[in-house]
Amino acid sequence: MKGLFITIEGPDGAGKTSLINELVPRLEKVAKAEMITTREPGGIPIAEEIREVILNPTNTLMDERTEALLYAASRRQHLVEKVLPALASGKLIIGDRFVDSSLAYQGAGRKIGMEKIAEINEFATEGLQPDLTLYLDIDSDTGLSRIRHNRSDEMNRLDMETLEFHQRVRHGYLKIAEMYPERIHTIDAHQVLFQVVDEAYEVITQRFPEYFNN
Amino acid sequence: MKGLFITIEGPDGAGKTSLINELVPRLEKVAKAEMITTREPGGIPIAEEIREVILNPTNTLMDERTEALLYAASRRQHLVEKVLPALASGKLIIGDRFVDSSLAYQGAGRKIGMEKIAEINEFATEGLQPDLTLYLDIDSDTGLSRIRHNRSDEMNRLDMETLEFHQRVRHGYLKIAEMYPERIHTIDAHQVLFQVVDEAYEVITQRFPEYFNN
Repeated sequence: MKGLFITIEGPDGAGKTSLINELVPRLEKVAKAEMITTREPGGIPIAEEIREVILNPTNTLMDERTEALLYAASRRQHLVEKVLPALASGKLIIGDRFVDSSLAYQGAGRKIGMEKIAEINEFATEGLQPDLTLYLDIDSDTGLSRIRHNRSDEMNRLDMETLEFHQRVRHGYLKIAEMYPERIHTIDAHQVLFQVVDEAYEVITQRFPEYFNN
Repeated sequence: MKGLFITIEGPDGAGKTSLINELVPRLEKVAKAEMITTREPGGIPIAEEIREVILNPTNTLMDERTEALLYAASRRQHLVEKVLPALASGKLIIGDRFVDSSLAYQGAGRKIGMEKIAEINEFATEGLQPDLTLYLDIDSDTGLSRIRHNRSDEMNRLDMETLEFHQRVRHGYLKIAEMYPERIHTIDAHQVLFQVVDEAYEVITQRFPEYFNN
C-alpha cells in the first residue's frame, strides 16, 4: 500500500506544533504503518544549506523572489530525499507546512502573487499534492497575541511583520482552502487544544480508514 | 538614456571568453557610456553563497530541479543587485550567459524541458530580456575538442558530460535562436577569432548607433 502524505498548515500562533505533538502519538496507536513527522528542511544537508542562505542575518539585501526560489529549491530536495522515499515505502507522513505556506506567506503576505508562487512550486513538486491538509484557521490578532505570549524569546522574522502582513497571510490561506475543498479541511483554531486534536484525529481516521485500526 | 543589456551565449568551447576579451576594449573606445562585463554570480554575496551550494562537491544527491531553482535564485539576486542598477544608471552591460544558458543546459541538456525552465526564469527575471544576444554556434565535436585542447587542467562538471548531452545543448540553443530572431543574432563560431569579433562589433554598433561614436 502506498503511503499517505498529510500536511498541517496555518499561521504562526495557530497551534500547529501543539497539535502535532498531541496528535501523532494518538494516531500511532492505531496506525497500520510507520508514521513520520517532518518539516522542511528536515535534516537533508542540501536543504539545510539552502535554509542557511535564507536565514543568514547578514543577507539583508535578499530579494523576495530570490527567497521564494530558495524555499522552492529547499522544498524540492526535501521532497526528493525524504518525502517521496517514505511514501514509496508505505509510511504515513505528517508534514509541518508545505506548498500552501509559500502561497500564503510569499504569495499573499509578501504580495508576489499566489499564482506565481504556485508556478515555481509546481516545478518543485512536479504537481504532487498532499492527500489531506489540515488548515488551522485563526484570526490574526489572536494568532499574534499567542505568539507574543508564548514565546517572546524566540520571535522570528515573520512573527515581527505587521498585523496587515499576517492578515494577508490568513486571507491567502482562506482563499486556498476555498480553491481546494476536497484536499483541505479547515479547523477552527480558536477552540481549545483538545478539541482541535479530536477534530484532526476524527478527520484523518475517517478519511483514510484503510490506514488505521479503528 | 537607459542602459543596454547585451548577452553572450553558446556552449563551452564556442569562444565566449575570448570574444569578450577582444570585443569589450574595442567597444569601449567608441562607447558613449560606461561599459561593464558581468557573469553570474558576479561578486554578489547572496548569489555567491547560492553558487557554493550548487558547486559543493559533497552535494552528490543534488536533484536536477533543485539545481535549476538555485540557478534561477542566483540569477535573480545578481539581476536585482547588479544588472538592474547598472541599466538604470545608463551603463552598457555585456553579460556572459543569462537565461538562455539555463534553457539550453537544464531545459534541453538535462531534459527538464525548456518551457518549464522558461517559467521559473520568467519568475526570476520578471520577464526582462536582453536587448541583444549574440549566440556563438559551434558543432559539439569541435566545441568539445577545443575545451579538451585548451584547458584540460580545468575541465568542469559540464565539460565532462557526454557528447549527446552537448548535442542536446546545441539543439536547445538553435531552437531558442529560431524562437527569438529579433533578439538573438547567431554567429558562426567555427570562424577564426578576429572574424567573430568583427561580426560582433558590427552587429552591436549598427544595432544601437545611439550608444556608440562610429
